[in-house]
Amino acid sequence: MSGPEDEALVGDKEGPVDEFDWIDRHLRPLAGDSPEALGLADDAAVIPARPGFDLVVSKDAIVAGVHFLPDDPLDLVARKLLRVNLSDLAAKGAEPYGYFLAIAWPSGFGWSARRAFVEGLSQDQAEFGLKLFGGDTVSTPGPLSASVTILGWVPAGRMVRRGGAKVGDVVLVTGTIGDGGLGLRAARGEGLGLSVGGHAWLKARYQTPRPRLGLGEALRCWAHAAADVSDGMIADAGRIASASAVRITLDIDRMPVSAAAGAWLATQRDRAAARLTLATAGDDYEILCTAPPPAVAPLKAAAEVHGFALTEIGVVSAGSGVEVTSQGQEVAVSRSGWRHGQ
Amino acid sequence: MSGPEDEALVGDKEGPVDEFDWIDRHLRPLAGDSPEALGLADDAAVIPARPGFDLVVSKDAIVAGVHFLPDDPLDLVARKLLRVNLSDLAAKGAEPYGYFLAIAWPSGFGWSARRAFVEGLSQDQAEFGLKLFGGDTVSTPGPLSASVTILGWVPAGRMVRRGGAKVGDVVLVTGTIGDGGLGLRAARGEGLGLSVGGHAWLKARYQTPRPRLGLGEALRCWAHAAADVSDGMIADAGRIASASAVRITLDIDRMPVSAAAGAWLATQRDRAAARLTLATAGDDYEILCTAPPPAVAPLKAAAEVHGFALTEIGVVSAGSGVEVTSQGQEVAVSRSGWRHGQ
Repeated sequence: MSGPEDEALVGDKEGPVDEFDWIDRHLRPLAGDSPEALGLADDAAVIPARPGFDLVVSKDAIVAGVHFLPDDPLDLVARKLLRVNLSDLAAKGAEPYGYFLAIAWPSGFGWSARRAFVEGLSQDQAEFGLKLFGGDTVSTPGPLSASVTILGWVPAGRMVRRGGAKVGDVVLVTGTIGDGGLGLRAARGEGLGLSVGGHAWLKARYQTPRPRLGLGEALRCWAHAAADVSDGMIADAGRIASASAVRITLDIDRMPVSAAAGAWLATQRDRAAARLTLATAGDDYEILCTAPPPAVAPLKAAAEVHGFALTEIGVVSAGSGVEVTSQGQEVAVSRSGWRHGQ
Repeated sequence: MSGPEDEALVGDKEGPVDEFDWIDRHLRPLAGDSPEALGLADDAAVIPARPGFDLVVSKDAIVAGVHFLPDDPLDLVARKLLRVNLSDLAAKGAEPYGYFLAIAWPSGFGWSARRAFVEGLSQDQAEFGLKLFGGDTVSTPGPLSASVTILGWVPAGRMVRRGGAKVGDVVLVTGTIGDGGLGLRAARGEGLGLSVGGHAWLKARYQTPRPRLGLGEALRCWAHAAADVSDGMIADAGRIASASAVRITLDIDRMPVSAAAGAWLATQRDRAAARLTLATAGDDYEILCTAPPPAVAPLKAAAEVHGFALTEIGVVSAGSGVEVTSQGQEVAVSRSGWRHGQ
């Protein structure tokens, strides 16, 4: 674990924050006694080879004001940062192992802010079986920013890729789509015409997504391709299509939506356009996968065991790109979130 | 590789930068055909187990205005980012393998800035045998920030740790100390009373440190402990002492300095204080190691083969902390860079 090169001390009523004290008092317990982390007292972590397994590595960064709201509670920011990375592992069929954290603190963030951030990390480490292996803590004149590099294990050669979709596959998606985008609007204080409960539920979906790790073994056994829905379901389907050199057709009418998103849809004059908004909003952290028809039943059974739905929403055919249909007709999709997916 | 969640397009006279185009056109070539990176087209990279080897992982972050100057050329910023991370591998006796990049671009950085950054990465990838395995690119309202998570290999169980120093060991340091700190002052435009050549040489030492990777095999064979000199030689010695539960005594008179730093020292009224300034300045990216006396000759020979010096500057004894001596007398060290090292 590295400390900052500059010596600026910032603090709150509990006194100035010394970065090295912060590492000692708050980050070191997150490493626990894991042999990989060497108590965060070395220049590097050491990951022993695990015979028969591949290491799956993903890295995602977040910036205040871009990926989360500046007044989001810091424990939730930390948990979302881990969960966004865990979602990548989930989509690859990987089992969580450990992570590296780089965090840039603005000068206004003292002990209590950092404690809240660490509390969020600690909570989700326990929930998802992760340990902190190392990283870096620096200061910044800009907004709070952080990145996580997450490590997970898959049996050798079994990582589920974006590029494995095959003609004839069914396209399936976990949970519900569009809650992340609506939740962001709720978190921004936008009135969505919903009940207080629905509003709060959507906001929670945005702030603490649920990585679908329970599906891992079934994905490795049955899925040909998978990706998590981070940039929007249509864009992410486009990436699977591109990596697999196939065409994906999505039936927007079959897209699963939550009760809260359904209530919002009911208030919209142009329902078809509103469904497209949900399909391109992103921040869902559901898993989109393709599998041959005989695999649908066992995949659905695995999802059910873990308490979430897995819904058939499309098919894979020869060609390229993504086609979206409603009531058998092609629907034009113009949002930029989709443009990138081609 | 992930793209940004927001859709802000920034650009220069060559037009707006589309983050996904940037990944396609500039980052993908950095991944080449490495099977780990999957063409940067997946959610994650996959690292196969290498039987008989451990993976060494380090992560360092940099922020404009904190770790580099806002007007530093971006190819040099990129190279320094890689080199700072490579220096951690060097100190652990590890062989470079690949890296993950997270970068947050402010809106003012268009194609030419990004091309320069990638050019620096490309140059040092070739020099040090690295491939880009993945990462994330996001936008930020703050300063340019980036982090690298670097991976390297060591034979199983052979990573050189901070915590292995033994009573009776000799303390050695590669190259010269203090050039990084003086180079920063040179880069800031401070007149150091030196020749134009000396000034430029120091600035280059600050902007493009040389990770001492050549010492890897000898460190694994002969050293008991090692760390790179990033926060200042005395502070980094303090961390070795702390992790190893020993006392380190450094003879400041034996600290190796470059011709340029020597010329600067000659202009200083209080030479002893000036030497301490160099010993606590940091940003040297040399390697500090401890080894038993019979190992000194082979370690020095290995360094000589790679064209740099390895100088004996201290001893390891029972106790704790770091003692600095000059002409046999203990010298008081008060800079905060040292305080953290205890």
